[in-house]
This record gives sequence, C-alpha cells and structure tokens, in this order.
Amino acid sequence: MTPDSVRPKNSRSPGRRPGGPDTRGEILKAARESFAGRGFTATSIRAVAREAGVDAALVHHYFDSKDELFIESMALPIDPRQVAAAILDGPRDELGRRIVTVFLGVWESPDGQQRMKAILRSVVTSDEVARLMREGITKMIIDPVAKMIDAPDAKLRVTLVASHLIGMALCRYLVELEPLASASPAALITQMAPALQTYLTN
Amino acid sequence: MTPDSVRPKNSRSPGRRPGGPDTRGEILKAARESFAGRGFTATSIRAVAREAGVDAALVHHYFDSKDELFIESMALPIDPRQVAAAILDGPRDELGRRIVTVFLGVWESPDGQQRMKAILRSVVTSDEVARLMREGITKMIIDPVAKMIDAPDAKLRVTLVASHLIGMALCRYLVELEPLASASPAALITQMAPALQTYLTN
Repeated sequence: MTPDSVRPKNSRSPGRRPGGPDTRGEILKAARESFAGRGFTATSIRAVAREAGVDAALVHHYFDSKDELFIESMALPIDPRQVAAAILDGPRDELGRRIVTVFLGVWESPDGQQRMKAILRSVVTSDEVARLMREGITKMIIDPVAKMIDAPDAKLRVTLVASHLIGMALCRYLVELEPLASASPAALITQMAPALQTYLTN
Repeated sequence: MTPDSVRPKNSRSPGRRPGGPDTRGEILKAARESFAGRGFTATSIRAVAREAGVDAALVHHYFDSKDELFIESMALPIDPRQVAAAILDGPRDELGRRIVTVFLGVWESPDGQQRMKAILRSVVTSDEVARLMREGITKMIIDPVAKMIDAPDAKLRVTLVASHLIGMALCRYLVELEPLASASPAALITQMAPALQTYLTN
C-alpha cells in the first residue's frame, strides 16, 4: 500500500465524454461543498451534478459511486478503505501496532506528509473541512475498526486511538516537538503500540 | 487549582510607575516576538525593554523574572508551573491519571476552553506561536515530568503523552468527533489513564 494507490481517475475511460476543461474538478468542488455543508447522507449525486452544472450521468462517468465521490472530495493521499483493510487484516491483539504502522506509512512518505499537513491545518481552521473529515474518517475507518472491538464503548475507544495518532502527527510534523519530531518510526511504533492496544483489548 | 489562578498581574503594585496607557501590553508584545523569533535563551529582559521602548527596570516592575515574562507571553489560561506541580504531586503509578485529570480541568472550564482553542488554532497555523509553545511546554512541563520517569527515553515518552492529550483536545473540542466530543470527563479519565500510564511505567 503506497500513497500512489489513490490517484485522480480521470484517465480511467478512453472514451471521455465532453465537458468543460476541468469538468471533473468542478464536480469535485460541488461535491466537497455539499458533503461539508449538508453531510454525506443528505448529499445526492443528482444534487452535486445540478450544482456543478452537468448531467448526473457525467458524474457517474468520473466517479463510480457516492462513496468514491466522497473519498475524492476529502483529497486524502491514500484511500481510507485501504487503510481500514490493512488495519483489520490480522490478529486483534496486534491491532495497535498495525494502526500506528499504517498511519506512519502515510505520513512518512514525502508526498503523503505534504498533503496530510495541509489537511490537518484546514481541519483546525475550517468548520466545513472538519465536518467533511469527521464524517469521512468515522464512516470509512472508525466504524469498521470499532466493529472489530467487542466492547460497549468500542467507538469511544477507537476515537481515542485516532486522537492519539492525530496528536502525534501534529506534534511531530507540524509543531516539531523534540524528541518526538526526530524519533525513528520504529521507536514510535515500539512506544505507541502498547498504549494504543490498551484501548483495543478489553 | 483553577484557571483563575493566573491573571494579569498589573494590579500587583500600588505605586505604579509611569508609562504609556498600555506599557505592560507593549512589553508583552515585544517579549512574545522575541521569544517566538529568537527563543527563550537568546531573549534578554534588556533587549525586550529596548524593543518596547522602555527602561529595563520597568520590565522588572511588571514581571518578576524572565520566566514570568515568558509565561505571560504564552497567554495560557493557567500557569504551567502549577500544572507541573499538580502533576508531580503523588505516586508515579498514578501519573497518567493525574495528567489527564489536570489537563481536562483546564479544558473543561468555559474560559479555559475558549483560550486553549485559540492557542491550538494559532499553534497549527503559525510557526512563531508553535515555537513559543514548544519551548514553553518543554521547559515548564515536559522536562520536569520527564525527570520523574526513570528511563533513558523519558523525554520521548512524555512528549508522546503530551501528543495524546493535544490530539484528544483537538478531536473533542475543535473537530467535535463523536462519541469523544460528548463523553464525560470521568469516562475519558477512566479510558485514558491506563493508556498514558504505559508511557510512564517502565
């Protein structure tokens, strides 16, 4: 799983239908506004198409599904469904280790880090981006992982895991707090895996 | 320890010396710029006075020491030295619980939360504020707590604890990620204390 695995998909179809010079970009812009303003459930492909001034069929030409449109709107450097799949694939008592390993894999790639830093800054300064990310991460990663935890407060536990990862990224990559900023990924995995695991084991 | 325990100290002396209408504010502004730009060590009271266009004695009139000037520059809702004292006062195997309890105490007060949210936003968007906070938190809280941990990587462990707290605050108060946002402080303490303690026990 590399950050290259999610890329704009506008070269997908050779028989590209007509549209403006950046029809796909216009659709994404309309989708982002709708997901951020109204949320995932209240956003329809039809309404996004109307907002972008294109036919709904053209939206379907560029994006396979509403999920796909949503994920592209978030502009993450990696498909969150792949993140969830990589996390869930393995024994539950090593969940903490897999989570921090996958997370650091995204942040340690130069391209991934650049985009994640921009996203983190936007989340903190814009309520709209915060809503988009909150819904997206919950639906694509937190909910599937919580299903693996057999506890009544599974979702709270998984959001606490997420909060630790986000705080680590903020302190390491944005604030550059030492010695966290210059610690090796291996040292961080060794330290963080047991802490995260306390939330994931009953 | 309440967030009221740190308040502007300009009513400290009855025999207030002359100065502009907000001499204290001017000194603080110059101090904040110097601490953020040059760092704590390279900042002198004399240079701050020159920058603010006042006599060094006037700086000493308003602020007891460089430490005090630094702490006021950070504009935290609570004196970080008191935070460190409250954390360190008790057995080491309950350090995790005390840390999250003190931290939530600051964030759960309406006034404290307002100011901490503003600080967190500034840290993420301004390299200068990030530097100021990074130096301040390291000197006033992380270093004293790390001294209590008898391990070669004590400082890394304590910065990881700090990163979890900051991430929790970001997800709970700024991003409002559920169910973390509406969990009770008691539930958070119960969940987080053991996770934080893994960093603080060898």
